[in-house]
Amino acid sequence: MKLWQKDYPLNQKIENFTVGKDRELDLNLAEFDVLGSLAHTQMLQTIGLLSSQELELIHQELKAIYQQIKDGNFRIEEGVEDVHSQVELQLTRKLGDTGKKIHSGRSRNDQVLVDLKLYMRNGLENIARQTQNLFTLLIKLSNQYKDILLPGYTHLQIAMPSSFGLWFGAYAESLVDDMHLLQAAYKITNKNPLGSGAGYGSSFPLNRTLTTQLLGFESLHYNVVYAQMSRGKTEQTACTAIAAIAATLSKIAMDICLYNSQNFGFLTLPDDLTTGSSIMPHKKNPDVAELLRGRTNRLKALPNEFSLLLSNLPSGYHRDLQLTKEIMMPAFEEIQSCLDITYFMLENIQVKPDILSDAKYAHLFSVERVNELVLQGVPFREAYMQVGKEIASGTYQPTRQVHHTHEGSIGNLSNEAITHQMAQVWNLFAFEKPATAIKQLLQ
Amino acid sequence: MKLWQKDYPLNQKIENFTVGKDRELDLNLAEFDVLGSLAHTQMLQTIGLLSSQELELIHQELKAIYQQIKDGNFRIEEGVEDVHSQVELQLTRKLGDTGKKIHSGRSRNDQVLVDLKLYMRNGLENIARQTQNLFTLLIKLSNQYKDILLPGYTHLQIAMPSSFGLWFGAYAESLVDDMHLLQAAYKITNKNPLGSGAGYGSSFPLNRTLTTQLLGFESLHYNVVYAQMSRGKTEQTACTAIAAIAATLSKIAMDICLYNSQNFGFLTLPDDLTTGSSIMPHKKNPDVAELLRGRTNRLKALPNEFSLLLSNLPSGYHRDLQLTKEIMMPAFEEIQSCLDITYFMLENIQVKPDILSDAKYAHLFSVERVNELVLQGVPFREAYMQVGKEIASGTYQPTRQVHHTHEGSIGNLSNEAITHQMAQVWNLFAFEKPATAIKQLLQ
Amino acid sequence: MKLWQKDYPLNQKIENFTVGKDRELDLNLAEFDVLGSLAHTQMLQTIGLLSSQELELIHQELKAIYQQIKDGNFRIEEGVEDVHSQVELQLTRKLGDTGKKIHSGRSRNDQVLVDLKLYMRNGLENIARQTQNLFTLLIKLSNQYKDILLPGYTHLQIAMPSSFGLWFGAYAESLVDDMHLLQAAYKITNKNPLGSGAGYGSSFPLNRTLTTQLLGFESLHYNVVYAQMSRGKTEQTACTAIAAIAATLSKIAMDICLYNSQNFGFLTLPDDLTTGSSIMPHKKNPDVAELLRGRTNRLKALPNEFSLLLSNLPSGYHRDLQLTKEIMMPAFEEIQSCLDITYFMLENIQVKPDILSDAKYAHLFSVERVNELVLQGVPFREAYMQVGKEIASGTYQPTRQVHHTHEGSIGNLSNEAITHQMAQVWNLFAFEKPATAIKQLLQ
Amino acid sequence: MKLWQKDYPLNQKIENFTVGKDRELDLNLAEFDVLGSLAHTQMLQTIGLLSSQELELIHQELKAIYQQIKDGNFRIEEGVEDVHSQVELQLTRKLGDTGKKIHSGRSRNDQVLVDLKLYMRNGLENIARQTQNLFTLLIKLSNQYKDILLPGYTHLQIAMPSSFGLWFGAYAESLVDDMHLLQAAYKITNKNPLGSGAGYGSSFPLNRTLTTQLLGFESLHYNVVYAQMSRGKTEQTACTAIAAIAATLSKIAMDICLYNSQNFGFLTLPDDLTTGSSIMPHKKNPDVAELLRGRTNRLKALPNEFSLLLSNLPSGYHRDLQLTKEIMMPAFEEIQSCLDITYFMLENIQVKPDILSDAKYAHLFSVERVNELVLQGVPFREAYMQVGKEIASGTYQPTRQVHHTHEGSIGNLSNEAITHQMAQVWNLFAFEKPATAIKQLLQ
Repeated sequence: MKLWQKDYPLNQKIENFTVGKDRELDLNLAEFDVLGSLAHTQMLQTIGLLSSQELELIHQELKAIYQQIKDGNFRIEEGVEDVHSQVELQLTRKLGDTGKKIHSGRSRNDQVLVDLKLYMRNGLENIARQTQNLFTLLIKLSNQYKDILLPGYTHLQIAMPSSFGLWFGAYAESLVDDMHLLQAAYKITNKNPLGSGAGYGSSFPLNRTLTTQLLGFESLHYNVVYAQMSRGKTEQTACTAIAAIAATLSKIAMDICLYNSQNFGFLTLPDDLTTGSSIMPHKKNPDVAELLRGRTNRLKALPNEFSLLLSNLPSGYHRDLQLTKEIMMPAFEEIQSCLDITYFMLENIQVKPDILSDAKYAHLFSVERVNELVLQGVPFREAYMQVGKEIASGTYQPTRQVHHTHEGSIGNLSNEAITHQMAQVWNLFAFEKPATAIKQLLQ
Repeated sequence: MKLWQKDYPLNQKIENFTVGKDRELDLNLAEFDVLGSLAHTQMLQTIGLLSSQELELIHQELKAIYQQIKDGNFRIEEGVEDVHSQVELQLTRKLGDTGKKIHSGRSRNDQVLVDLKLYMRNGLENIARQTQNLFTLLIKLSNQYKDILLPGYTHLQIAMPSSFGLWFGAYAESLVDDMHLLQAAYKITNKNPLGSGAGYGSSFPLNRTLTTQLLGFESLHYNVVYAQMSRGKTEQTACTAIAAIAATLSKIAMDICLYNSQNFGFLTLPDDLTTGSSIMPHKKNPDVAELLRGRTNRLKALPNEFSLLLSNLPSGYHRDLQLTKEIMMPAFEEIQSCLDITYFMLENIQVKPDILSDAKYAHLFSVERVNELVLQGVPFREAYMQVGKEIASGTYQPTRQVHHTHEGSIGNLSNEAITHQMAQVWNLFAFEKPATAIKQLLQ
Repeated sequence: MKLWQKDYPLNQKIENFTVGKDRELDLNLAEFDVLGSLAHTQMLQTIGLLSSQELELIHQELKAIYQQIKDGNFRIEEGVEDVHSQVELQLTRKLGDTGKKIHSGRSRNDQVLVDLKLYMRNGLENIARQTQNLFTLLIKLSNQYKDILLPGYTHLQIAMPSSFGLWFGAYAESLVDDMHLLQAAYKITNKNPLGSGAGYGSSFPLNRTLTTQLLGFESLHYNVVYAQMSRGKTEQTACTAIAAIAATLSKIAMDICLYNSQNFGFLTLPDDLTTGSSIMPHKKNPDVAELLRGRTNRLKALPNEFSLLLSNLPSGYHRDLQLTKEIMMPAFEEIQSCLDITYFMLENIQVKPDILSDAKYAHLFSVERVNELVLQGVPFREAYMQVGKEIASGTYQPTRQVHHTHEGSIGNLSNEAITHQMAQVWNLFAFEKPATAIKQLLQ
Repeated sequence: MKLWQKDYPLNQKIENFTVGKDRELDLNLAEFDVLGSLAHTQMLQTIGLLSSQELELIHQELKAIYQQIKDGNFRIEEGVEDVHSQVELQLTRKLGDTGKKIHSGRSRNDQVLVDLKLYMRNGLENIARQTQNLFTLLIKLSNQYKDILLPGYTHLQIAMPSSFGLWFGAYAESLVDDMHLLQAAYKITNKNPLGSGAGYGSSFPLNRTLTTQLLGFESLHYNVVYAQMSRGKTEQTACTAIAAIAATLSKIAMDICLYNSQNFGFLTLPDDLTTGSSIMPHKKNPDVAELLRGRTNRLKALPNEFSLLLSNLPSGYHRDLQLTKEIMMPAFEEIQSCLDITYFMLENIQVKPDILSDAKYAHLFSVERVNELVLQGVPFREAYMQVGKEIASGTYQPTRQVHHTHEGSIGNLSNEAITHQMAQVWNLFAFEKPATAIKQLLQ
């Protein structure tokens, strides 16, 4: 059964091609579809398109379906095209003509749009929470290992002393910046497209401000043509934020693969996080870190995939936009899986002490020597040349002591200040507002 | 002359390959390099690494160089590697040993970082201003042409009535969402990396909070390892925001190319904005719109180009990062050029009246007819089928009247509310703060 | 059971993360895994690592498994990690220690590599065949509709007369060029990596030339380090060829969406290929063409996704490479589905006659008028200006006749020559060679 | 002066935006524009559109301009839009009306197309030659260092013995596969678009087969609509081949950066190829390798940039296509610069002997021990477990001897066979044919 079905039979090949993965992916939208219908029908009653009695019946049934979904018992029946048709079908079975009325003043386009907005708003919140948790762990590890020194590299050359405190803390601070992109994505997502119809509005006297409040959106996509244009654009922005987090995780993973190599040996991964070789009995490979790197690198490809899908489409809906679900939904799941495994991996990682006692790291301290001379009054360029000569002639003696005191340095990690930065971004999300609205809608 | 030059001669081929476009691109950084040095040296004086007298001399010379740059007289001399060396060279020529001292507590890495941050902060502000101007024009056009109807398309099929009011307004609202990404980019950019040295901090007791205030940054990149990691990431985020604006412009341009085709004929471009054909005397081609489309589509490729450049680089500086300038700087110029030409084109575009009187647009009003029946009490699905039959049998008569009243619809564009949304994002930038700081630094 | 399992238990979360979609995707490799083992063991016998009797037993069982796969009865059992382990498990159950011997002189790395090569070689052949079929259809349609004229556009402006003969034929010729990329991908794919072990070869005196012949490969990846490096690179090249075909299909689809719009009206799609609207009863939307456009545009993203996955990985195997399967395998299926639906759509498309009789297409013939004057002796630039004035003054009269005779023009489509070009590329594939080898291996 | 200029003045802003970098980039096309005109006019004479005398005059002038270009004296005058206008202007100044006649039967579109084809054909040949040279060097180095062992890594873990012979040879063989893509690009490039006009052919009785022969093309883009469609597609394919070579160079560069790190220490770069640090006097950074890696990674972004530019453009010329030059031309120069510097770097690289004597590499030989046991009759899986236990208990003793004999292994690099593969691809280019044709055309 298709809502728009006319008299002619549909070729099966065509159906497979057009329906694609919709029936499977749409299950993710079921709960949000019900929420959207709850708000839409409540609004329809206020403008006289549903009686109070009809509204009561419809809400009763919609809440029952919501419960069915939460209980894991909802499914899209054979022959039903998508989640929206399934919900409407169940409603009509129970309520007859009354059930048919819920589509008044709504198009499948704005119905899908609002479902996707609610799905992504929920998903971005979950991602934000996981990112926040990972941040907290990284700060904890940074504080815990602040005194364990590491060689710092530039150009992959041994450069200056670093520390695990700096290393863990750097990735914590990286997540703060990623959170800004997540916040932008959340802002764009958290706007109500409902009431925009097929992109050109409706002749019904809809009250879009009301549905905006009922669904806990921060604001509206006012212009109905733009509401439609936000399809794809919202998904792309969400995936851009996901890609930013992915880039941070990918870089951690690359460092771990390198530092776990016998040629560095800065880290040990527990047995659970390594695998063996089918022909080399001595191997303990960091497969988890490698797959984390690979998976997050794949996520970085998604914003561009959206650009390719959306480029040069004139304004107005095109069926191509259906495919945005196939890119976006797996990305939401994947980044959550990657955040989860990163947390697990970092929680179990073991750092090695005394790394810098190896002779090859002696040169790390040459800048310290230069600065020592500068503090004794030697102009910088001359001090630099003098130490260069000491190294060349073999007379250079490393001090192996690091006294860094300024903000963000080995001796003064400033993790509280970084934590404060994170808290500031976090507060901008204001997750309570939608939570309260949805709770009220379901009462 | 290179700061790090040792005793061996440099092969010319190598020099060309490594210096690349730096000497040319670095001119863009000159004024920001001076600002960074003004702040750095003022801080050095407070921690006793420069005397008050030395500071005064240095500031005097730096301000003279700043004026030279503003007057267009600054250049990088033959044999000088980059802008930083040139500034230091001029300083040393005048002040001798005192000039050499300004590099204390600073690496070329954090010097470049702070220059780039200041360059991008300035560029993002310019882009925000132009975006705001274009927004204002689009809102003005939306209001001006709110009563001129257009066919609305879905699937490139004639669908429902739209209007130039909706069409211009949609792109205005699109820019509001783009501004959220620009805001995120600005937030990430507006943090001080100075004092992070080569990515591992300094043994000097630097006061990074002071330079943050002097340069008007909102905050610091505290963690010195992260400050270095922000290289490339900041540029990529800026280009992501640029790409978002580019996507909006690209879509306007595609619509214009289509609507300007004789098969649509919704718009006329003035002669200045069209070109002819070398063999077809009747042609007036919308080359400006096409090049706008093409150029903005190219800009959309940049975030991915950064990903390719940065992927799987371990933490710590790599020379690859020098190339971020080559991607980022032209992008800043290009988006400003595209915003400028879009403004110019839209200012001069002529919209056609009476488009909907053409018979082929009669079906546009079929949804109005369905809704009319619904308001008479017919359930939606039945009304839909009845109008379908009227169309099939040729009895359907379009009303050609549109009474849309809800928020964001043809009859209620809500442009004031959209303008309010834009003002809210705008205020988050707080452009006054850096402006005031820089002004004070130059006094 | 994992081949490399040691004594410690594996955390389930880790297992899910590392195994990923392997168990599902690996089923696609089953038949090729058996082929690889048939060849490998036959070679092992020639170098004395298997007795003739052992070989016979192993081949008997492998062929039984092959039949099981072909019958659709093969599955990867619960707790078995991948297809390679499953095949080895079934073998060992039947043959005990003899089964264990087949892994001699082989690593899981080169086993997967050869499986993937065989899978892709087979897939590329299928794609080539479908491309060839679509080509034949396009040439047929080009010949069939050679006399039906179309407006030709440049800059989306009405330009000069074109024809459906030219339009269909252009896409046929486009496929010829795509086939060159497919050929390059096939060349790179059709090389034997077996015997390269984990990327550093084997101390067994393997005969790699023999397995090359047995499996019908054109040549070897000789260098064992390079054989491993071909992982990811081969998949990327295959997807690059797929993306080239996708680009051709995407462009056809865009043209169809446009030409099917009421504003062009050049084509009609049969009801089966269109869908309706849930609120607009008059709509017949070209969803199939739109989804074809969208799906092929997504395929164009894949080569870049590989670049992101592979960039800056040092030489040697990394587990990230496991993910190449997840990108490549769905791409092979998707392009085949897209080629299939394109064939179906073009077979059923209806072209409209008499398009050019519409008054707005009169200017199409202005170049004909210019050329007429040139043939009368007027220098080109003067003729061009004269016709420009005729158009401006309204005195221009279109001839509505097209006499193009040169190669590839409306009157001389040269479809035989294009077909000859296709035959030339086709012959380079030499698909018989692997077919013969595989047939022999299975006897 | 613009060929299509009408009566109205052109706004300077618009002119800057539309002309873009054309005047600068077009200089690269000058010599090819003259070649195209030589062939076109010779053909025009055979079909009676030029007299023999006119042809002679025109050829004389064109050859003079060709010489002017080769001497470096050609320039595009102020106010002249592009190279095509400049050549025609110089011709008309000398020959008056006769000069004007060369544009008969040609559009600027097919003129640009043929120029670009000739430019790219020439560029691809240069790239092929440089690639071949680099291949030869790599094979030489592979043979030279075949006995110097290296640790082979999988998962960045020490795995099995490798050698510099294998390492250099792997990259040589990688270039063979890249050459297949270059060959496909060359095939697609080496087809004549001249005579396709603005994409819809000409009413003149052109002889396109003749110009194909005169310009040494292998074949024609027959279908005139397709000839136009090849714009962008040809450039993209060329850049795809360039990106494949870039990926090989990028991987070499990554290996070198890693192997040059003090934590590996497998390679030494001469002083010319390293740079120092402004604050760390002991540094010798591999900037050349890093920039090579970064630059080649940027090149890998280009095929996708083309996709973004070209996606969803309907058939027919669009001005967006002008921008393909801006992507393609710098790519041709950049890959040649990268090939050049790679050659230079590899020629000067110093490999370290005795790497494997370090204790941490002892485990490299564990597979040798497993295989030894297998050859003694122990089933593989049992041998694997036994050696695992030896390692765990500390009783494992590495043999430190490698006896690999099979094709492509340490002891049998098969460099002659790889060289033969390269020769086979090389021969497919048949570079003599165009060379001979062009030489004849210029006589």
